[in-house]
Amino acid sequence: MSDVHPALDLDETVHQRVRLGILVILSETSECAFGALRDELQLTDGNLSRHLQVLESAGLLEVRKGYEGKRPITWLRLTAEGKTALHKELDALQRLVSRVRKD
Amino acid sequence: MSDVHPALDLDETVHQRVRLGILVILSETSECAFGALRDELQLTDGNLSRHLQVLESAGLLEVRKGYEGKRPITWLRLTAEGKTALHKELDALQRLVSRVRKD
Repeated sequence: MSDVHPALDLDETVHQRVRLGILVILSETSECAFGALRDELQLTDGNLSRHLQVLESAGLLEVRKGYEGKRPITWLRLTAEGKTALHKELDALQRLVSRVRKD
Repeated sequence: MSDVHPALDLDETVHQRVRLGILVILSETSECAFGALRDELQLTDGNLSRHLQVLESAGLLEVRKGYEGKRPITWLRLTAEGKTALHKELDALQRLVSRVRKD
């Protein structure tokens, strides 16, 4: 085997469907509220929370607790590592797509 | 929300990292031996078997038992549904990549 298959460049932390969606949405904005993210990805609070924990533990996003008026809001934003990890994943996906679509 | 986020078009059966790798490799050949697939994706027999079962149950690949000389070999090939599912996934990935890379 001369070189490694591009599928091996995919990182499950980032590649998992919901987490990839979270990273893409966060890449499009400076900060996103928990509720907006939950609604856009059609998730339950619990499911979104679990995926956010994985991404936060990996250092890919930051959580900020704030208020809008008196209402507590959880804000989420990508870290620099999160941006790098997302772009690495997108590069790997582009290589995979191009490989199949070469014809 | 006017339209659905492209991450929601990803199907976990096909999107999962190892299974996506399997489908891409099978798309590049008419048939592939179990051992070659295992080596290219750097998996154990058990891990590859589990993912093949998921794909076979979903109707995305076919398993054929054969021989090379006296040695039993398991051959794998994509079904028509498997090809369609892979291309649907690649379309969704391309939309996701293009969305982030629009700048």
